[in-house]
Amino acid sequence: MREMFTHELEALRDDLVKMANHVAVAIEKATSALDNADLLVAEEVIDADRRIDGMERALDDQGISVLARQQPVATDLRVVVSGLRLSATIERMGDLARHVAYVARGRYPQTALDGPMRDLVSEMGSQAVKVAQRVTQLLENRDLDLAAEIEREDDVLDELHRRSFEIVLDESVPMTRQQVVDAVLLGRYLERFGDHAVSVARRVSYLVTGDTVFETDHKDGETDAHRD
Amino acid sequence: MREMFTHELEALRDDLVKMANHVAVAIEKATSALDNADLLVAEEVIDADRRIDGMERALDDQGISVLARQQPVATDLRVVVSGLRLSATIERMGDLARHVAYVARGRYPQTALDGPMRDLVSEMGSQAVKVAQRVTQLLENRDLDLAAEIEREDDVLDELHRRSFEIVLDESVPMTRQQVVDAVLLGRYLERFGDHAVSVARRVSYLVTGDTVFETDHKDGETDAHRD
Repeated sequence: MREMFTHELEALRDDLVKMANHVAVAIEKATSALDNADLLVAEEVIDADRRIDGMERALDDQGISVLARQQPVATDLRVVVSGLRLSATIERMGDLARHVAYVARGRYPQTALDGPMRDLVSEMGSQAVKVAQRVTQLLENRDLDLAAEIEREDDVLDELHRRSFEIVLDESVPMTRQQVVDAVLLGRYLERFGDHAVSVARRVSYLVTGDTVFETDHKDGETDAHRD
Repeated sequence: MREMFTHELEALRDDLVKMANHVAVAIEKATSALDNADLLVAEEVIDADRRIDGMERALDDQGISVLARQQPVATDLRVVVSGLRLSATIERMGDLARHVAYVARGRYPQTALDGPMRDLVSEMGSQAVKVAQRVTQLLENRDLDLAAEIEREDDVLDELHRRSFEIVLDESVPMTRQQVVDAVLLGRYLERFGDHAVSVARRVSYLVTGDTVFETDHKDGETDAHRD
């Protein structure tokens, strides 16, 4: 019984890794579609997100089935419930990659990254890709150094996001309305993407160490130009 | 045993209702802080969100404790796991109310609703309040007419959101950069708020009828100006 349970937990973990890997590919493609005004790649990301959603549903069913059959308690129970939470968060990251792809598709045949925000948003995109790759690795090997790295990389993302508002709000920088709208939305999507990655990192750290460092989403307001 | 379990499920439901009610109050206050440039009310929303976060953590612990002690299967198990999902979604709605409050606070002593977007964003706010109140009622009485109403009210919210992009993207409408940024962010927060309400409505409907009508978040892209 115990052996079978361990086996099932490993299957759950493998599926989470696969899902996170799909998300990493999605954000990489979405940001490259932005950079290159590539309609086909944008469409690929949008279509592929249905698969990520399907993986979440499958993980849900699997998790619930493990709970029903194995009736785990204590740590085992927390691992399964955390798996359900992790899959929901990773699914949200997939949604955000899809949103980035919508922007790329919406501007085609132009690029949404024309204008003075080009380099900065592009840098935010690369940073989001890095974060997503670390998330996949972290789920795979539970190396807490990676969790710390994700937090640091998200800080960079937040700082870029803050700077994006400085540029956008500067009336002396010539930008079309469309450019302003795209910069604000892309900034928001990528910043949220990073926040979700941090929440994955903290949940995994908690599973490994037992220390709660959550404080769920209070950090996500800190980079808003609106904080103060 | 069964009686105690029923009692615990009722306690979970009551706590969800309370949490949703806090969120309804939060979004009402946040939008009124926007309308009236009321710093104190904005601060209240921001502070109160910590309580909502705390309620989510308590619900998590409660749910996990029920799973561990009662070892529910089949429908009962789905009810408890759904409760955990619902609390996570409602917590996100609370975060979004807090984000609206950040915008109100950030513009103080001015109002973030100056300019040509005033009426429309204010209408989105009222609509979000309505949706949040229906969510509380739905969790309380599981009346599926309310679930349908939430879907319809969210459609109105989406349509207002779509129109907000039309105005913002019209270069002939004079707006400052700050007004554009605020309109885009507030529109996004309120639209997401409605999407989460719909996801609560669908999950509750599923619990009541057993019919899956999820399709998690694919609708949330539809109102993006970027969809096509």
